[in-house]
Amino acid sequence: MKPDVKHMKWWGWGEEGVFFNYLNKPAFAPFVKKALNIDLRPRKIDTIAFDPATVAESEVPGALLEALVAATDADQVTTDAHERVVHGHGSSVTELLHVSRGDYGRLPEVVVYPRTDAEVAAVLAAAVEQDAVVVPYGGGTNIARSLQLDPAERRPIVSLDTGLLAGLYELDEEAGLARVGGGMQGPALEEALNDRGWTLGHMPDSFTHSTVGGWAATRSSGMQSDKYGDIADIVRGMTVVRPSGTVSLKPVPSESTGPSLREMFIGSEGRLGVITELWVQVHRLPAERTVVAYMYPEWKTAVAAIRQISDEEIPTTFVRISDGNETGFSLATQKAATTVKKKVEAAGQKGLWALMRKRGWDTDQMCISYVCFEGSAEDVARRRKAVDKIAKTHGALVLGTGPGALYDQKKFDTPYLRDFLLEQDVMGDVSETAAPWSKLNGIHRAVYAAAEKAYQQLGRKGWVMCHLSHSYHVGACLYFTFAFKVGDNPDAEYALLKTSIQQAFVDNGGTLSHHHGVGMEHAPWMEQVVSAEGVAIMRSLFDATDPGRNLNPGKIIDPAISLFDALD
Amino acid sequence: MKPDVKHMKWWGWGEEGVFFNYLNKPAFAPFVKKALNIDLRPRKIDTIAFDPATVAESEVPGALLEALVAATDADQVTTDAHERVVHGHGSSVTELLHVSRGDYGRLPEVVVYPRTDAEVAAVLAAAVEQDAVVVPYGGGTNIARSLQLDPAERRPIVSLDTGLLAGLYELDEEAGLARVGGGMQGPALEEALNDRGWTLGHMPDSFTHSTVGGWAATRSSGMQSDKYGDIADIVRGMTVVRPSGTVSLKPVPSESTGPSLREMFIGSEGRLGVITELWVQVHRLPAERTVVAYMYPEWKTAVAAIRQISDEEIPTTFVRISDGNETGFSLATQKAATTVKKKVEAAGQKGLWALMRKRGWDTDQMCISYVCFEGSAEDVARRRKAVDKIAKTHGALVLGTGPGALYDQKKFDTPYLRDFLLEQDVMGDVSETAAPWSKLNGIHRAVYAAAEKAYQQLGRKGWVMCHLSHSYHVGACLYFTFAFKVGDNPDAEYALLKTSIQQAFVDNGGTLSHHHGVGMEHAPWMEQVVSAEGVAIMRSLFDATDPGRNLNPGKIIDPAISLFDALD
Repeated sequence: MKPDVKHMKWWGWGEEGVFFNYLNKPAFAPFVKKALNIDLRPRKIDTIAFDPATVAESEVPGALLEALVAATDADQVTTDAHERVVHGHGSSVTELLHVSRGDYGRLPEVVVYPRTDAEVAAVLAAAVEQDAVVVPYGGGTNIARSLQLDPAERRPIVSLDTGLLAGLYELDEEAGLARVGGGMQGPALEEALNDRGWTLGHMPDSFTHSTVGGWAATRSSGMQSDKYGDIADIVRGMTVVRPSGTVSLKPVPSESTGPSLREMFIGSEGRLGVITELWVQVHRLPAERTVVAYMYPEWKTAVAAIRQISDEEIPTTFVRISDGNETGFSLATQKAATTVKKKVEAAGQKGLWALMRKRGWDTDQMCISYVCFEGSAEDVARRRKAVDKIAKTHGALVLGTGPGALYDQKKFDTPYLRDFLLEQDVMGDVSETAAPWSKLNGIHRAVYAAAEKAYQQLGRKGWVMCHLSHSYHVGACLYFTFAFKVGDNPDAEYALLKTSIQQAFVDNGGTLSHHHGVGMEHAPWMEQVVSAEGVAIMRSLFDATDPGRNLNPGKIIDPAISLFDALD
Repeated sequence: MKPDVKHMKWWGWGEEGVFFNYLNKPAFAPFVKKALNIDLRPRKIDTIAFDPATVAESEVPGALLEALVAATDADQVTTDAHERVVHGHGSSVTELLHVSRGDYGRLPEVVVYPRTDAEVAAVLAAAVEQDAVVVPYGGGTNIARSLQLDPAERRPIVSLDTGLLAGLYELDEEAGLARVGGGMQGPALEEALNDRGWTLGHMPDSFTHSTVGGWAATRSSGMQSDKYGDIADIVRGMTVVRPSGTVSLKPVPSESTGPSLREMFIGSEGRLGVITELWVQVHRLPAERTVVAYMYPEWKTAVAAIRQISDEEIPTTFVRISDGNETGFSLATQKAATTVKKKVEAAGQKGLWALMRKRGWDTDQMCISYVCFEGSAEDVARRRKAVDKIAKTHGALVLGTGPGALYDQKKFDTPYLRDFLLEQDVMGDVSETAAPWSKLNGIHRAVYAAAEKAYQQLGRKGWVMCHLSHSYHVGACLYFTFAFKVGDNPDAEYALLKTSIQQAFVDNGGTLSHHHGVGMEHAPWMEQVVSAEGVAIMRSLFDATDPGRNLNPGKIIDPAISLFDALD
């Protein structure tokens, strides 16, 4: 029997039946032709039927299987082929490329769905006793290859699905704190909170399928972090089950209790145990919420404006700027105007473009920006006025709330594009960093140069675009998307792009990731970012607390698979 | 030769020649009579002459001394008796009680003042090589007994004074980041920043003598943390020198790089190495700064008002409420009116009291509150208006900026009172916690009950008072002060009070300390706060990264001295 836990498509992102459709977006095919020099074909694949015959029978040792059933129950343990494939990968583009082509890689021998902390403890004890590896699995959305399994691992691998550790257990309305199961997915949690007038406000791109425990385990940040905080700010207490015992951290606003255990578990990607329960800070639903769009003549001006919003401490829920390339991409994904209202809007947009050109703007350089305001009607009006003023000072046009509302509706759709592109033999992926304000323009330039050089090396046209999001007092996140038509060796070609961009980050004052985690994907840069001695401390911590290397080994440091090995 | 590094009095707090004077505060002696049932004597002790003959010659091994001189220079290494006494303790009331009476406890054999990271590395290497213990020393202000030395330690102890690792090395005005030496003290740093139009804004009570590295090592928080953040928010990057290598963490606004090394070093109290350099976020000096005072009829109403300020997300630099007892104490430390202006003010205050009594207020229950606003004149005016409105809704009287300005001037004076009281054979100390909003009133009640019970057990009248400060989305800090006339066994009597209060914290949803650190003082509660398994993880970390136990052992967990041992 299969527990009732929602999973994504085994072969791609999201729900079956949801796709990116370019046929109703007249500018998209010409845009791709120009960007990648390829002709798009209509999408053909609606789904990929799963064939269990493509998967070898599980070789799970009988003693381990018995021990896992004893730790939980017979209907919570499965060796079903489809379940093993689903749990055998995360959502990085390289994993999906291979999986969708029937190349599953190393699969777990068994999947277990514990219902309680005691069951998690029993599963971990059984795994250590039987010398098995345990990889916790939440929504499967991770793109840093934290879930990909080590092909060289000879011991049995147990995928521990947290899907039954879900629920809003407690809401402390006086403190603004909620106690939540680690396996609870974003939409279920928001719905339960919204029903009572509250919100978590944590909205990563993966929101529709990822879990609270997964957010904590990968040190996530959502697009509204300016107001609601990174997951490290949001998580105030937690329960972590380990083979040797359980750590329970009470929720407090702040504390001085030595090195922070909370901040060790956050980002630990299963290497320190399983995060089963979390105390998260929640906010009352705002009376008003508005997203305003602005158009800046160029990137540097837009960054300076956003810097000034931070400097003047104007509370925003999010700020975002797309650079010239990303703004062009956004415009190319606009739907065709089919109603009178849309046609009038489209005509208005043409007039706007004419105005910009008249002002001398280079429309390839212009940058669209979105700023979200929440609060009382009065707060929203005042903050909006202050940001409008800053934007105008920096030469921006205030586009108003129409495009903002559209952006807000579409915000979780982007990952579907990746699957569409894969079907077109195009690899599209993302790489993001964070850096001080003083380093952002340098990183932006360096990444474009690095990507361009890599595309030249591949001998084909490729694409790169960027947005700034997640604004802090000292800096912000830069989020790059790159895409290219794959050739004979997709892994090597991808590795060339990805390593070029990551290296440009760390060489120019950025970190290896702002909110995607380390996994195996970013592990090769850990020494450059935290020093060899910093990696040595982490190694000491993992070795000392997991002497048998049973807890998702080969992630964060000393990766089981390195991108550099894939380079030609 | 003694390096030119400023230290506090060897026998008490702060600078020689600065004292608490009660003779110009007419209400103080009657207040103490009522609170503690004792008659104050005029202060007699201006200073305590240091007699080197009271200190046994250092038994530092010759090889160690030579190695330390080789690691630095002859004028950076000293075995001088006064230097050893200064570096032999922090500023906890039990340490000062003993030291001021000539009972120095375990002293370091040698004090070393490295000037560079390379010298720190060489000192640490020498210490490990010679099997010595190294205790980093900043301003000596720590009151959690993080600096007190283990009397049972048979190996030589080296006090590593960070005083020469000082300076504002770099100011990145575009990012709002400063690179600072770990040994730089608060006033020097603020002055250097203020000169260029910037501020760190980190103002712990110890500010006048504590160091940036010490703030980080003890997970400090300053009174202005609502705006400027805790030290964990302020420190964005750092250099930590360890015997096996140096960790350099670049400054970034936020990052997803696995378990946070930054958050391991913050609060590590020397157990993971020496923090030599920090990247801290800095703010432009605000155009306006105002502190407004409010008087609430009672504690619970005042807490609800502050909760509402947080709920409405009105930016404040700090908020503070004193409970009835602390408000009474504040009024008792007002200076006598000696000028016409002061006399008019005093008359106004009497009128105010009459008004309150007419309104039916119990003047023993009323709570003074201070709220600080910073920003543009317009921001300050708007925020102040919003807080005034909330205060009035909760029945408060707005006292205005007069008392606020006075509070702001006197904010670093409190620690001097402790020395005055010690001379009167009164131990006065503090204990602070943080908890969710929903737990604050329960903790407040429980601490009063616990202190009362302890005083009954001692059979004498004692005092306790409290303020709320450091407001966060989910809760706040409660800061208690207690005082009693010591009897025959000050250590046991102190331990009874302190353990009773700390236990009331952790039994009622609070943590063991909001910003004072763990040291040996709070270590006995670590298992109750982070679980036995959490302590086991910390032990693994310390053991694995400091196998020879050379780095300030016996602090944070497994304390060398436990308060419970002092109980009768």
